[in-house]
Amino acid sequence: MPLAGALLRSYKRVKGQKVGAGNLVAAQQRPDGRSRIIAAARNLFASRGFHLTAMSELAAEAQVSVGQIYRLFKNKDDIILAIVEDDHREWMVQMTQVRDAAVSGRISPAEAFERLILETLSDEYETLTFEILAEAGRSAEVGARIRQFAGDFRAVLRDLACRANDRLGERDLEAVTELLMATLFGLSGRNLGDHHLDREATASEIARLIMAMLKNAES
Amino acid sequence: MPLAGALLRSYKRVKGQKVGAGNLVAAQQRPDGRSRIIAAARNLFASRGFHLTAMSELAAEAQVSVGQIYRLFKNKDDIILAIVEDDHREWMVQMTQVRDAAVSGRISPAEAFERLILETLSDEYETLTFEILAEAGRSAEVGARIRQFAGDFRAVLRDLACRANDRLGERDLEAVTELLMATLFGLSGRNLGDHHLDREATASEIARLIMAMLKNAES
Repeated sequence: MPLAGALLRSYKRVKGQKVGAGNLVAAQQRPDGRSRIIAAARNLFASRGFHLTAMSELAAEAQVSVGQIYRLFKNKDDIILAIVEDDHREWMVQMTQVRDAAVSGRISPAEAFERLILETLSDEYETLTFEILAEAGRSAEVGARIRQFAGDFRAVLRDLACRANDRLGERDLEAVTELLMATLFGLSGRNLGDHHLDREATASEIARLIMAMLKNAES
Repeated sequence: MPLAGALLRSYKRVKGQKVGAGNLVAAQQRPDGRSRIIAAARNLFASRGFHLTAMSELAAEAQVSVGQIYRLFKNKDDIILAIVEDDHREWMVQMTQVRDAAVSGRISPAEAFERLILETLSDEYETLTFEILAEAGRSAEVGARIRQFAGDFRAVLRDLACRANDRLGERDLEAVTELLMATLFGLSGRNLGDHHLDREATASEIARLIMAMLKNAES
């Protein structure tokens, strides 16, 4: 994970951790209650579904009391919001690093897209993502947070598109940003299809094709 | 809906219909029990969620008995499968028409992509789609059906890519098909973001950019 800072690595460790009863964690490394609740919610919302997960199951999986969950979160939607906020923060750390590296010329725009795609394809919580997106259609608060997330993502993709081709006008930039948003979002669901290229090949090939598109995008 | 045949139009009519109690349908036009159950399931799975929808609610919304539902469907997953199969059949009618028109030269590849994108953007069941995709991660049968759907979609996109640029080698074709799959799938979720272009502009601009990519896709 060359992109991620210390914050992100510690977050990933908690996120990836199986937090069930059989897991031995040394006391000084033990994640706090909030992190354990969020990690347990990721597992349960993905495996059982958001609506079928009871607060008591969540408490057992996170090894906290139900009361502790309610001291930290108003309700289950509030836990979904916390997951989206954590993911958003994680993404923004990475996106900002990639954008800064591309804008300063330390990496090429093609390399920037390749890194973003690699990150997109490393998400092991695909089912959870769809569960959250379905909830975004029902909860105004979750929907608003997802739109904010999408807006920040859009701004970074737009900056990279400008970097790849500085002759693009306003209308062309809108169009390529729309396409980049769709492609990056769409790649995160590719495990549902019978894809033929592995993760690394997909990232480098798609980045190459995005550059071919961007360099010829003037209308 | 210039793409769709009579079958599709009648299907869309049932799909778009509000089948609640206040709806008066002349007896000879009244859709059959199966169609009413599926239309009601679309509404309820989207608005309440798959897991929280009770068979009794579904029966009331579809104006059938619970017994009638169980004579037609084994369980709720079976209804999800029926929704996916109906959508798959609808898509394939449209996709095949678009592909045939492009391969025979009646429409350009750019026009073919534009039509497919317009269809993708007309889906008013976004929340339902995410609900189904989340279930695809939990149910092997739903997952298998979604993969079959994706495989058919992939084959059509590949044919269109060949038509757009007949110099593409095998590896390039794999890569562009992967990108097209992601982009088309990703566009179906664009209402979650703060998009700036309307449906028609998005379809024509993205089709143009796809063509710019395909014509320059040789590695």
